[in-house]
Amino acid sequence: MTNFSFEQLYRFTFSIFKSMGCHDEHATTATKTLLSADLRGIDSHGVARLSGYVRLWEIKRVNADPQIKIIHETLSTATIDGDSGLGLVVAPFAMQVAIDKAKTVGTGWVSVCNSNHFGIAGSHAMMALQHDMIGIAMTNASALVAPTFSKERMLGTNPIAVAIPANKQPAFVADMATTTAANGKLEILQRKNEDIPVGWAQDKDGISSTDANIIKKQGALLPLGSDREHGSHKGYALGSIVDIFSGILSGGSYGPWVPPFPAYVPMSEYQPGKGLGHFFGAMRIDAFRPAADFKEHMDNWIRRFRKAIPMDGHEKVLIPGDPEREMETIRMKEGIPIVDSVVDDLKKVGEKFGIDF
Amino acid sequence: MTNFSFEQLYRFTFSIFKSMGCHDEHATTATKTLLSADLRGIDSHGVARLSGYVRLWEIKRVNADPQIKIIHETLSTATIDGDSGLGLVVAPFAMQVAIDKAKTVGTGWVSVCNSNHFGIAGSHAMMALQHDMIGIAMTNASALVAPTFSKERMLGTNPIAVAIPANKQPAFVADMATTTAANGKLEILQRKNEDIPVGWAQDKDGISSTDANIIKKQGALLPLGSDREHGSHKGYALGSIVDIFSGILSGGSYGPWVPPFPAYVPMSEYQPGKGLGHFFGAMRIDAFRPAADFKEHMDNWIRRFRKAIPMDGHEKVLIPGDPEREMETIRMKEGIPIVDSVVDDLKKVGEKFGIDF
Repeated sequence: MTNFSFEQLYRFTFSIFKSMGCHDEHATTATKTLLSADLRGIDSHGVARLSGYVRLWEIKRVNADPQIKIIHETLSTATIDGDSGLGLVVAPFAMQVAIDKAKTVGTGWVSVCNSNHFGIAGSHAMMALQHDMIGIAMTNASALVAPTFSKERMLGTNPIAVAIPANKQPAFVADMATTTAANGKLEILQRKNEDIPVGWAQDKDGISSTDANIIKKQGALLPLGSDREHGSHKGYALGSIVDIFSGILSGGSYGPWVPPFPAYVPMSEYQPGKGLGHFFGAMRIDAFRPAADFKEHMDNWIRRFRKAIPMDGHEKVLIPGDPEREMETIRMKEGIPIVDSVVDDLKKVGEKFGIDF
Repeated sequence: MTNFSFEQLYRFTFSIFKSMGCHDEHATTATKTLLSADLRGIDSHGVARLSGYVRLWEIKRVNADPQIKIIHETLSTATIDGDSGLGLVVAPFAMQVAIDKAKTVGTGWVSVCNSNHFGIAGSHAMMALQHDMIGIAMTNASALVAPTFSKERMLGTNPIAVAIPANKQPAFVADMATTTAANGKLEILQRKNEDIPVGWAQDKDGISSTDANIIKKQGALLPLGSDREHGSHKGYALGSIVDIFSGILSGGSYGPWVPPFPAYVPMSEYQPGKGLGHFFGAMRIDAFRPAADFKEHMDNWIRRFRKAIPMDGHEKVLIPGDPEREMETIRMKEGIPIVDSVVDDLKKVGEKFGIDF
């Protein structure tokens, strides 16, 4: 484990994106989006994925200079073709379109096809906050999740993020995979050589498994709820809604056919649409009630929930977004710890382009 | 248990709403909405609640002749004051406003305050289907749910429903409480004098409980995910989003202050807003892509998911909405079974107004 400052990681990541052929504005956006994950403590979605993006570019599944286009629109909606660009660039573009529509008619809703992985959903949803809007972001992803009663992997971890502004209190920011545990949590236990809890995953025959490597053995992650008795049909429904809003509304791929992130995994030959799909929403608060009133009530809501009587052994009840925001403050000050395997990986990526890490 | 035809229940329920002072159109809407729950097999939200609505009307918390008003709007949004009307009437009104907005600008989003319980969320979301729109419905409710790490009940079971049209396949209809188990499921086990599974509820000290009566002993339902290790912070976040969209955007009440459904439970003296809140959305499919294309891909999605290899001991993978739709077909033909305690309750309600059940 080595500590790097945000600036160090920023300079390196920006150079890599530039070397791939991104122009300055896109490289800046991609770098900020990618590193927002490291800052917020979601290490699986940050700089650890940089080499993965480079490999997708090498096999021409990522276009470093995309012509992102609105292919259909109404006053409150748009459909966007990402031209195989980095999701890290396509997603902020699309979220901005949603925000612009919301300025005009109260809300904006954008479905995106032909994109790639977009980093953490939360960073896109949070773009709405400075405009006194509620932001929503979601994406489909390649299939790792078995629906309730299924042996087969049919859905991605399909995260949903919702960011809601407050006044004096920090914003409410939920950002969650629609599975019981995100894949990144399994990876942490893999590295420690530990078992995963019952309820996170199943093996290829649909039997509950505690093997942290089970996904590599054709196992599957479980939808939020874990099993039918504990509501996994709800997690399955949520993941499906994300898939349909992101993939089918946009003309993207969906379900078991969504292109995989690892470049070495072959894509399904049958593709019902183009690339990964995302879905974004922005709602102007004052399209419903004065923003100042709303934000004061949000403060009231947050204060009351923070004061909820905690269980024994727990200091307090958290508000969605608290842990990530606290992590961001710490890491901006003290740097971002990167595990050795990722440091090696980044060195190798640098070597490809003659850039020192 | 006695079987009643839909028509029998319809005539009786309609007469009760008329006797409360609802005019014909409202009584029709309220009856259809309430009984859609019985038809779809969600017995806890149907005619079993009729006496509860009557009692709320008796203590003047329900206004049988509400002047439902749009108090704020933009091209794609509206805020509605339900004038303390039955949620069964206010919600379909609000959903229709969302649909009308979607016709004009692509999508419509409506937040509602000063309402009451609205039956099942799914029935409102499904109003969008005939217009080739995606329908969304949610509501807050009085606090029965403890956030992650909390002893206190802070949120309602706050359901979310999403209805998505297909072509030859039946529509995708998800309708779910944001808890591991809905309260109705506990009530079924109470009647059978059985324990509930671990992960559904906790006692007043925040300790996991299998007592089906624990909610009556100041216990709490658990958010979807059950505990932190299995993602209860996600269920808590989902329930919170529903509360904020329904209660705070609209100017309604929220969190632990939402008025209770049982008329005998005193309302919190402090009220941060007016009554229960709901939130509705309608998105025109062809605001994103041609509806025919979308619906064909929905068929493709549904067919593929139905063909997912099932776990041993399970016949097939279900699509959200399958069990409720199949139940509706059966109950329309064979009648609706009502447990004896509810039959007695309905007789008593009838006696109040001189109506035979």
